[in-house]
Amino acid sequence: MIAATPNPPCYAVIFTNLRTDIDEGYGKLAEEMVRLAEQQPGYLGHESVRDGLGITISYWESLEAIKNWKAHTDHLVAQKYGREKWYAAFKTRIALVERDYGFEREE
Amino acid sequence: MIAATPNPPCYAVIFTNLRTDIDEGYGKLAEEMVRLAEQQPGYLGHESVRDGLGITISYWESLEAIKNWKAHTDHLVAQKYGREKWYAAFKTRIALVERDYGFEREE
Repeated sequence: MIAATPNPPCYAVIFTNLRTDIDEGYGKLAEEMVRLAEQQPGYLGHESVRDGLGITISYWESLEAIKNWKAHTDHLVAQKYGREKWYAAFKTRIALVERDYGFEREE
Repeated sequence: MIAATPNPPCYAVIFTNLRTDIDEGYGKLAEEMVRLAEQQPGYLGHESVRDGLGITISYWESLEAIKNWKAHTDHLVAQKYGREKWYAAFKTRIALVERDYGFEREE
């Protein structure tokens, strides 16, 4: 569930969002978008949590890869629905991951 | 709940983590760390969600501000407990936010 991204640098797309009360196919399309993103060139992994506030971070090899995914036809449709009905608010941040470190319990 | 960060650039510290079953003061210290972080020079905001996986993102003016917060005495104690008992695994990523855009429903 913690994305196994390669050593930096890479890019992160941090998508922080609040949902409306409208479902209308949200869950299904969100899952489809994850599956589709995973197939895109330059995709490196993602992490996603929701508890009221939703945070989804996807990791990419380059800005070019992010741009291509943002312009993918199916993704454009999802973005349109997102603004029209699913999201009350969101913020997307494009960030260059410069450094990372981690920890994993050995037991 | 979506952090109202100023226009980029700024830095993001993405802390993705999995907890152990051990509580022992975790909630209280986590809250204290948020309060303390908010008082640090260069702090710009944070977003935090947990549902099994936890993601906490804090935003900062500079790498210097992040370094100072990481070395803060009380925070060092919290980091020690984190590795000793609270976290099964975590990954910390330091990232330069280059661009952002957002949306807020008008109704």
